[in-house]
Amino acid sequence: MLIVQKYGGSSVASLGLMRRIVKRVLETLRNGHRVVVVVSAMGDETDALVDLARRANKNPSPRELDVLLSTGEQKSIALLAMLLQARGQPAISLVGGQAGIITDNQYGRALIRAIDTTRIRRELERGNVVVVAGFQGVTENNEITTLGRGGSDLTAVALSAALPADLCEIYTDVEGVYQADPAIVEGARKIDKISYDEMLELASSGAQVMQARSIEFAHRYNVRLHVRASHGLTQGTIITSEEKCMEQVIYRGIASQKEEAKFSVLNVPDVPGIAARIFGALADRGISVDLIIQSAARNGRNDITFTVSENDFQATREVLSQVAPSLGADGYTYDRDIAKISVVGAGMRNHPGVAATMFQALADQDINIELISTSETRISCVVREDRAEDAVRAIHEAFEAKGWSQPLPPPASA
Amino acid sequence: MLIVQKYGGSSVASLGLMRRIVKRVLETLRNGHRVVVVVSAMGDETDALVDLARRANKNPSPRELDVLLSTGEQKSIALLAMLLQARGQPAISLVGGQAGIITDNQYGRALIRAIDTTRIRRELERGNVVVVAGFQGVTENNEITTLGRGGSDLTAVALSAALPADLCEIYTDVEGVYQADPAIVEGARKIDKISYDEMLELASSGAQVMQARSIEFAHRYNVRLHVRASHGLTQGTIITSEEKCMEQVIYRGIASQKEEAKFSVLNVPDVPGIAARIFGALADRGISVDLIIQSAARNGRNDITFTVSENDFQATREVLSQVAPSLGADGYTYDRDIAKISVVGAGMRNHPGVAATMFQALADQDINIELISTSETRISCVVREDRAEDAVRAIHEAFEAKGWSQPLPPPASA
Repeated sequence: MLIVQKYGGSSVASLGLMRRIVKRVLETLRNGHRVVVVVSAMGDETDALVDLARRANKNPSPRELDVLLSTGEQKSIALLAMLLQARGQPAISLVGGQAGIITDNQYGRALIRAIDTTRIRRELERGNVVVVAGFQGVTENNEITTLGRGGSDLTAVALSAALPADLCEIYTDVEGVYQADPAIVEGARKIDKISYDEMLELASSGAQVMQARSIEFAHRYNVRLHVRASHGLTQGTIITSEEKCMEQVIYRGIASQKEEAKFSVLNVPDVPGIAARIFGALADRGISVDLIIQSAARNGRNDITFTVSENDFQATREVLSQVAPSLGADGYTYDRDIAKISVVGAGMRNHPGVAATMFQALADQDINIELISTSETRISCVVREDRAEDAVRAIHEAFEAKGWSQPLPPPASA
Repeated sequence: MLIVQKYGGSSVASLGLMRRIVKRVLETLRNGHRVVVVVSAMGDETDALVDLARRANKNPSPRELDVLLSTGEQKSIALLAMLLQARGQPAISLVGGQAGIITDNQYGRALIRAIDTTRIRRELERGNVVVVAGFQGVTENNEITTLGRGGSDLTAVALSAALPADLCEIYTDVEGVYQADPAIVEGARKIDKISYDEMLELASSGAQVMQARSIEFAHRYNVRLHVRASHGLTQGTIITSEEKCMEQVIYRGIASQKEEAKFSVLNVPDVPGIAARIFGALADRGISVDLIIQSAARNGRNDITFTVSENDFQATREVLSQVAPSLGADGYTYDRDIAKISVVGAGMRNHPGVAATMFQALADQDINIELISTSETRISCVVREDRAEDAVRAIHEAFEAKGWSQPLPPPASA
């Protein structure tokens, strides 16, 4: 098999930790596979570089920031190649451009346009382990770009799709994807297999393991993912397409997200085009909106409520201060002390009683629900931030008590 | 004017020091010039990276080492561009490949093959200060290379030749080129103007200001150099072609070099081809030989003595252990405790009494001369290493006493 292995910053934080990666790569080779390794910058080097940049310039140019940040992964790949070579294993490092990763020119959050795998495939044929710098690419004009948060995962997934690889292993400091954060919910179990859709909902809902963007990419190109611990040999979580996911369950997992802020635009005229103007103005500023709820109209007016990431709090205020008056709204309110709790499961929508059980579990804990939003495979509630962990525990326990995390009976006998 | 300014590692060791560079660049722009800046890695970052590499692999692959080391300059250029931008000055950073610096594939000591200045010129036309990473380039196959010791100077000189620039300023932590190391010779004066030939001899003789390679390059392409201090505003030393060097003097400066080792191959048959075999074998190992002295033959045999850099000591022993027996020599001897003292001046060779004065000055100090070698613009003596500083002082004082560092009378009245 051709396997792409991705190791994050905490797995390459020192030469000693990198030697563990070398050991694992050599083991994979001994099992008859070929390996492409994607690595992040060492430890918190990226944060240190960002900090240096901000000390140089409060508002550093995104282009220059990418020139700076891309050095982090470049260091990692050279050192890992040297370590492999020190063990007698032919290896070669490739920066983003050399690996054929072509992006657009949105510095700091570039989108992959194309991958030319000629060079990687040639190096593999020569018997090399190919060590690729994650998180980075070049534009068609040879400008250095970075892919933004979760960029190294994306590099690994995109290379897996382009080569194509038989498997993409995401090595991390946890053992896989869990039903719920084990730090909050005692007894939360590791998920052995999960569909792209479910994983996507979990990731979008605050599970930290992988960014939604990489999962979407894997789904689109049907890249088989294995999220597993960089230490030890235990199986992690396989993320794959639904058909192959044998054990379909109602309740796959639960996640909470505290880094959200809620805004309500008050008493907006209930006429066409209002939502488009609000969310168009937010999109123009590059602000991603999470939940959107529009209340039923009363007297030809209604409230539009939505949540955004805390990072976008200030920018959202600026946009609304401009937009709200021009809509004839009665201004807007905001609330930063909220948390979004999301339960995810492929069978959730069509199974009776799921939402009711969730709401009852919260009611039993005296937790007030401020917003509700549902999708095909997810139900989310917004609650007070200081009740988030109580909410997660209560819902998880209620769903477990119903046996909803057990596989459904096979369709034939349904 | 178009000015290329090169700042070494000690001038960019911190953001604070880089801000001084920004100030100087802005001043240069205010004076109506356009500026290309070439920078080294911050402080001792290159040494730190080399150290990291050696901990990863005792014998790191030169290709991977270049991938690693090139990150040092890449960090510097991004930060300097950000600092310029913070002052409202449009600026753009370019890594070696983006700056059009194409090299051969001798990793770690690549030779510049060509420079395509299209991009730099376009950025200048856009009003940018162009900040180029020194010390690095790419091969035609887009492999990252470094230029070896003194590589950032070479980048600056080569860019100056290719653009072409009107002036290449080399900023350093000394005020210019001195007659002698002021730490050894009290009252040694800064040289205002020096010819390429003289500077080359001084550099090859141990003066630390610039590497011989960059001066040769500047000479070949007639790049006007100004070596000056990165702090303060005093004029430094102009290095230019002889015709323009008004004040020709007999004695320009003196330098000493302790990092040398002397080898003698003993009792070699005095037949054609012997020297070629010895020095051919050394060249095959990449060893540069400095002085070569062949004694007059006695009984059809002679001794061949030469000096090499201390770095090449071990390799030279290995070569001679193989070659000396095959030549029918009586083995070889070596001596690591030597120093080479060189006096440099364009008028030296044709002026009577220069060598005699030098030898007398050494004799007065009871310093024994072990080897003598002369060139068009240089006389070198090898002495005991522990007498090197006494020798430098004695010779400098003797030459000053003769008034030889004063300009010669103009040719017309000669």
